[in-house]
Amino acid sequence: MSGVPRGMALVAQSGGPTAVINASACGVIQEALRQPNIAGVLGANRGILGALEEDLFDLAAESAETINGLLSTPSAAIGSCRYKLGSLVNDRAKYERLLAVFQAHNIRHFFYIGGNDSMDTADKVHQLARESGYDLRVIGIPKTIDNDLPITDHCPGYGSVAKFMATATMEAGRDTEAMFTFDAVTLIEAMGRNTGWIAAACGLARRDERDAPQLVYVPEIPFNLDRFLGDVDDVIRRLGGACVVVSEGLKDASGEYLRAETGSFGSDRFGHRQLGGVAEYLKELIEARLKVKARFNKLGTCQRNAIHWASLTDSREAYLCGQEAVRQAVSGSSGVMITLERVSQNPYECRTGTVPLREVANKVKYLPREYMNAAGNHISQAMRDYASPLIQGTVPIRMGEDGLPIFVRFRRQSVPKRLPEWKAP
Amino acid sequence: MSGVPRGMALVAQSGGPTAVINASACGVIQEALRQPNIAGVLGANRGILGALEEDLFDLAAESAETINGLLSTPSAAIGSCRYKLGSLVNDRAKYERLLAVFQAHNIRHFFYIGGNDSMDTADKVHQLARESGYDLRVIGIPKTIDNDLPITDHCPGYGSVAKFMATATMEAGRDTEAMFTFDAVTLIEAMGRNTGWIAAACGLARRDERDAPQLVYVPEIPFNLDRFLGDVDDVIRRLGGACVVVSEGLKDASGEYLRAETGSFGSDRFGHRQLGGVAEYLKELIEARLKVKARFNKLGTCQRNAIHWASLTDSREAYLCGQEAVRQAVSGSSGVMITLERVSQNPYECRTGTVPLREVANKVKYLPREYMNAAGNHISQAMRDYASPLIQGTVPIRMGEDGLPIFVRFRRQSVPKRLPEWKAP
Repeated sequence: MSGVPRGMALVAQSGGPTAVINASACGVIQEALRQPNIAGVLGANRGILGALEEDLFDLAAESAETINGLLSTPSAAIGSCRYKLGSLVNDRAKYERLLAVFQAHNIRHFFYIGGNDSMDTADKVHQLARESGYDLRVIGIPKTIDNDLPITDHCPGYGSVAKFMATATMEAGRDTEAMFTFDAVTLIEAMGRNTGWIAAACGLARRDERDAPQLVYVPEIPFNLDRFLGDVDDVIRRLGGACVVVSEGLKDASGEYLRAETGSFGSDRFGHRQLGGVAEYLKELIEARLKVKARFNKLGTCQRNAIHWASLTDSREAYLCGQEAVRQAVSGSSGVMITLERVSQNPYECRTGTVPLREVANKVKYLPREYMNAAGNHISQAMRDYASPLIQGTVPIRMGEDGLPIFVRFRRQSVPKRLPEWKAP
Repeated sequence: MSGVPRGMALVAQSGGPTAVINASACGVIQEALRQPNIAGVLGANRGILGALEEDLFDLAAESAETINGLLSTPSAAIGSCRYKLGSLVNDRAKYERLLAVFQAHNIRHFFYIGGNDSMDTADKVHQLARESGYDLRVIGIPKTIDNDLPITDHCPGYGSVAKFMATATMEAGRDTEAMFTFDAVTLIEAMGRNTGWIAAACGLARRDERDAPQLVYVPEIPFNLDRFLGDVDDVIRRLGGACVVVSEGLKDASGEYLRAETGSFGSDRFGHRQLGGVAEYLKELIEARLKVKARFNKLGTCQRNAIHWASLTDSREAYLCGQEAVRQAVSGSSGVMITLERVSQNPYECRTGTVPLREVANKVKYLPREYMNAAGNHISQAMRDYASPLIQGTVPIRMGEDGLPIFVRFRRQSVPKRLPEWKAP
């Protein structure tokens, strides 16, 4: 023990939900409630926004059954946000407000479950607290279906989307196979704005030549339309039809997105462009150029929340990261993110580690080129070796009498505000 | 026994695949192999097309393990088609060709697993055989995710798509809920060209007011855009955001589809228009008119093949229909479709029956108005009572060491042709 003053813990979730982000929250809450140096556990509604606006609720007031139910409840039960804080110079007032909220509630442990942007926020909170002499432990817990955080072997959330999307690809592939003569091509659009990790996971579905997907395209490899149409045509000639996985973030040789989503909200608050039309665009091109019928599946947010077919390995690691975050905090660490370190491949064995937040903040881990084949249109054995251990087992789901899963919701007992009202701009 | 000559059985699958159409095939094959009056079991590649082109394979040559594996293999393992035969007058040559193929292989039992159109084909084959004095038993086995066959209480295939889509709606709904402030609306597009059965099944996901989906729209109720936008706006005001299920086949007051899919293949060979753009269209309208961000999920063919989360009740009934078809055939029935009759609601109990094919051919069972609420924007208790028993249990899935399901494929040992080559026009 490092002499951290006894105080409250605050947990917040950020960014796009995953099937197992609540397993990390469960790990934090259950471990924090066991720690004598932690006086209570608060949740921030809507991620960092809730922390800024002092919109907090008492996680210790939730039942043990609800907290345990987080293990089989998808999405961010505490509440999430997409709200990026800028630099300590430009957004100083916001960081100071955060610290004021922490001080007002004697919050001494801040656990932030999120991706690249969140680790940047957590790092700045950590820096400011240290500069200000406020004794605070800030621990980042990795979460992203995109699997694009650096240093950690992989990210909680990825194994589950990988398992579900690979399975959905197998299933849709059998549909295509049965209907080759009629709908020759099925396109499956996988999430992944900048990286091909999820699309590549769909590639795991292919065990032999006839299996879907016959082709996989990722954003890391510049997309060439003529080569793509040639690839599809080759597969149709060989097998009668094709099931093709494309990442939503495909880019051409000049680095431009192949297709940005139409609609009135072309980019989110981070300035990221919202994508989504790649599969539909390619479907129309295939029909026009190859003269065969094509269709597309875009599973959208269903893919990242599929707890009903989540990886048990992923869920356990997500829990472990949450639990380890608390242990790190009470033993005096701060300004670090929990990592997963693969210590053995066969049998697969993984342990936690830590890395300074500044080393992960705003950095992106791309799919290594060697995880794809030479032609750049399918995965390699290296990708299989990497990803297969991450999708083992399925998370047990509590079922209702109506034949559907039972998910939990927090009671959300509000913590009375102690500061003047403050609205995030 | 009715004195049907000992002979071969032929099994064919037709139309869009389902998660459990292979369970019906399994029931046919396993029961047929037990019947002394059935000399062997053949499969038709690509449904009725394979029968027409004498493209047959020997199902009895498949291993018991493969045949049993059909129970956990989605889509149409025998091979399917969309190929409609016309009237006995207009398409006489095709029907006669079919009968010639049957005679050439001494096929005395024809089992056709399909939907409305297939029952029409089966009926005509039955009629022509009788007119021609060829002793043939023709039994239809219901199959459609659309659940739109008349007389039968429900159709094998429906319970599984219902269970999966309701679960996916629950999961995506939790995503929306966590991100209300940012992505206010999630639209989920359910299959259903003419009927709202699948969209209505998504409504089962809602157990309390906060649950997704808050709104459900079906083709049977004319779609009014202003009322829709008002409904969505109401939910956003009340809860902060909304998860909305729309059927791909929504129609306006004049009966026109709200949106037909773009692309070069606007209709299939039956003259049905191909749909698919409803959710994307409504997403853009919501953004433009309500000034909130929206997104859409279109699970496409993944929804109808989701064996990994299929209803055990549905799978068992699909098997039972296949098995009963064989028993009916060998006991002398012909020209009938197997039906499911709900004999008790609580506890749920279902038995098989039969109905003349001509009474189901080309008829459509719409979602009854009373299965929707008065406002026409969600389901009623009657729909819950009807559908909940159909989604009970989950089909056990054999898993590979790679963490993914194991599906089977037939060896497809071809039956030598006995007739001159004939190509379907």
